[in-house]
Amino acid sequence: MTASRQLHLGAILSGVGTTQNGWLHPDLPGDASVNIDWYIDNARKAEAAKFDLVFIVDSPYITPDTAPHFLNRLEPLTLLSAVATATSRIGLAGTLTTSYWEPFNVARQFASLDLISRGRAAWNVVTTGLEGAARNYGREEHFDHKLRYARAREFVDVVQGLWDSYEDDAFPRDKANAVFLDKGKQHPLNHQGAFFSVAGPLNIQRSPQGQPVIFQAGESEQGRALGAAIAEGIYANAESFDQAQEYYADVKRRATALGRNPDHILILPGLIPIIADTDEEARAIEEEQNGKLDLNKALVQLGRPFNYHDFTQYDLDAPFPDVSHLSLNSYKGRAERIIRTAQRDNLTLRETAWRFAARANPFVGSPKTVADEIERWFLDGASDGFNLRVTNPADFAIFVDRVVPLLQARGLFRTEYAHDTLRGHLGLPFVQNRHARAAPAAIAAE
Amino acid sequence: MTASRQLHLGAILSGVGTTQNGWLHPDLPGDASVNIDWYIDNARKAEAAKFDLVFIVDSPYITPDTAPHFLNRLEPLTLLSAVATATSRIGLAGTLTTSYWEPFNVARQFASLDLISRGRAAWNVVTTGLEGAARNYGREEHFDHKLRYARAREFVDVVQGLWDSYEDDAFPRDKANAVFLDKGKQHPLNHQGAFFSVAGPLNIQRSPQGQPVIFQAGESEQGRALGAAIAEGIYANAESFDQAQEYYADVKRRATALGRNPDHILILPGLIPIIADTDEEARAIEEEQNGKLDLNKALVQLGRPFNYHDFTQYDLDAPFPDVSHLSLNSYKGRAERIIRTAQRDNLTLRETAWRFAARANPFVGSPKTVADEIERWFLDGASDGFNLRVTNPADFAIFVDRVVPLLQARGLFRTEYAHDTLRGHLGLPFVQNRHARAAPAAIAAE
Repeated sequence: MTASRQLHLGAILSGVGTTQNGWLHPDLPGDASVNIDWYIDNARKAEAAKFDLVFIVDSPYITPDTAPHFLNRLEPLTLLSAVATATSRIGLAGTLTTSYWEPFNVARQFASLDLISRGRAAWNVVTTGLEGAARNYGREEHFDHKLRYARAREFVDVVQGLWDSYEDDAFPRDKANAVFLDKGKQHPLNHQGAFFSVAGPLNIQRSPQGQPVIFQAGESEQGRALGAAIAEGIYANAESFDQAQEYYADVKRRATALGRNPDHILILPGLIPIIADTDEEARAIEEEQNGKLDLNKALVQLGRPFNYHDFTQYDLDAPFPDVSHLSLNSYKGRAERIIRTAQRDNLTLRETAWRFAARANPFVGSPKTVADEIERWFLDGASDGFNLRVTNPADFAIFVDRVVPLLQARGLFRTEYAHDTLRGHLGLPFVQNRHARAAPAAIAAE
Repeated sequence: MTASRQLHLGAILSGVGTTQNGWLHPDLPGDASVNIDWYIDNARKAEAAKFDLVFIVDSPYITPDTAPHFLNRLEPLTLLSAVATATSRIGLAGTLTTSYWEPFNVARQFASLDLISRGRAAWNVVTTGLEGAARNYGREEHFDHKLRYARAREFVDVVQGLWDSYEDDAFPRDKANAVFLDKGKQHPLNHQGAFFSVAGPLNIQRSPQGQPVIFQAGESEQGRALGAAIAEGIYANAESFDQAQEYYADVKRRATALGRNPDHILILPGLIPIIADTDEEARAIEEEQNGKLDLNKALVQLGRPFNYHDFTQYDLDAPFPDVSHLSLNSYKGRAERIIRTAQRDNLTLRETAWRFAARANPFVGSPKTVADEIERWFLDGASDGFNLRVTNPADFAIFVDRVVPLLQARGLFRTEYAHDTLRGHLGLPFVQNRHARAAPAAIAAE
């Protein structure tokens, strides 16, 4: 840990919000998820607060019962390209699945976003949890969980290979001598792998940060292995300090074992703080929110990581049902955590639904209490920062106005941007082009 | 022809330009193709001139010898999303191939651009001419020409079906009664076709213009048939008035035969005017430009529609070679036109290369001469407007400052936008949702 180590903060922008009832908040425009002005306004607020990045989650499959934001929303790449020219410093992270895209198209669109934003793009790599997505893409069955992760690994390799199609000085653009391209600095990829064959070269140069940042989110064995191998940022779960600390240590250990610098894989748990003047008031707000929860919606939410398994068929007051017959091919890590928690704590189905609907929240209290807990997670090996998951303007404002200044006073968060690129904000190095010859500095040192 | 019929003008924005030497112009920044500010600036100029739309061409395959713009450039969807929030009225047309994308992703991104721009998106449907593209997408061989067009037809059907996933009033967003979605107005597609199986529904609502406008460009038999069936705008070739008139009549006839309103398929030939104070000066500029052409680059350009066939292997001063052994699976219509022209006019290979490098240009002269020729094409059944293909700022400015006012004075072009959507500008009707019940007006008339 260096003296200058600081928190990294992301703001998840999700329109009307990813829960079933969040859209009912009186301050939230009902069309927030399809209104580009809403996104631009919130990205500018996050930039004014010196956040590292905004983050767009995604899913390519819906049913009539899907939560409002996912039912009807802007697509991440087009959305972030529009936000790019309305902002100047904040990073732009978009989610896109490796299961139903072509690597060439993905490489091209993120590289384009990276140039449009002048080095602020990140790709959150997901494999898609919901099995129904397959039928939107010509397949009867979703790829098996293990296969999805193997494909994702190769997919990212291909994309990163395409991103190095041109060395950074490939384009002299010398009009006097009529030399646009230095042809020796254009490199085809000629990838032939288990899942993809891609010749290249990509038709776009690199950005001021070299390559877009790679984010990932995965709790399962395969998810952690993929994250340790490829991720530079991880959007993690924040159920409790202990769970976060175990995850943090495990992923950093795995990355180190792969020869990576563990400081170059930043772990940012989701943060949904409930903040009020006093701890008592904040607790009261939490209780009121939980009191408004609807059991049927909680059961739908519980079923989602099990590929929308119907939990209403079981006795609510019997122990959490045996679901060992389910394939757990969807959001496997989350489903496993639910089963594990229910068994460990001897929960009934009803209790399990409430537990996960109410989302055990470690960040409830006064601004000082929340800042203290953030500091504890940051200093005691549970996180490198957080991805703020609030939907309502007031919830964002109270965090920015009352918690962030405390973190800044403690030297834990920047008061001004020191860099122009997302890699700069995150303390990640510029990605050297794999084809570049030894840098002049190295040659001079010989 | 109605009294109010007016020209439609598009501006093709292509950075440093799609020719080999265009980037050498002293007024053109060498990085124009990867500089979003360049695109925003030029889109705003086209909007200030009241153009209907800007147009982005595309190709997903390059070699070291590809023309500068295609070597290194922003991707159309991300580019146009960034331009969308920097403009307010002008239409935004982007090219995307049906050969190497998933319909669900294409439907989603164009729908998102359509919402971001508040009803100004258009999709230029292409099938990709260059066979090498296949190897960027896991295929050894490019789809056969006929197969490409069959796939394109079904692809567009699927995309348009997905665009109607929600009826226009599907989202009451009624907070008082907690009704976000009217579930009866969400419609899966359940498409099962020869090439694609897509269940839907799409996770995004329709825009103020109902659906994005469909553009297409195709000269071959299959290209014309597809355009007549699906296109609402066609980016056509403008070699000569006679050729344009034949094409215009043929495509309108085909569309009419399919039961379509021929006024709802607008034909916009490419326009590369050479304008000076007098006709003599303009002719002199044309001759000077042609004098600068390089025979080797002309031969590369000649080979492109033949999938970059190497024409340097033949005797330059013998008759145009027999290329009947080539499959013409690339830009088939253009290749056929080159062969036809060379045979008809008994051209040598050298003469053929010059003829197509120099691009026989019907629009050379004083502002009045060019305006007269535009008017003749428009009134005598050769076009519904034009897609302006100039790269240099001065060439755009002279057209806007000296030709457009003449067209406006003759009542042939708008002096102010009368609509907010691209369909409005083009005189195309709002696309009714296929699932909507009879409109109230129709019910009232019974």
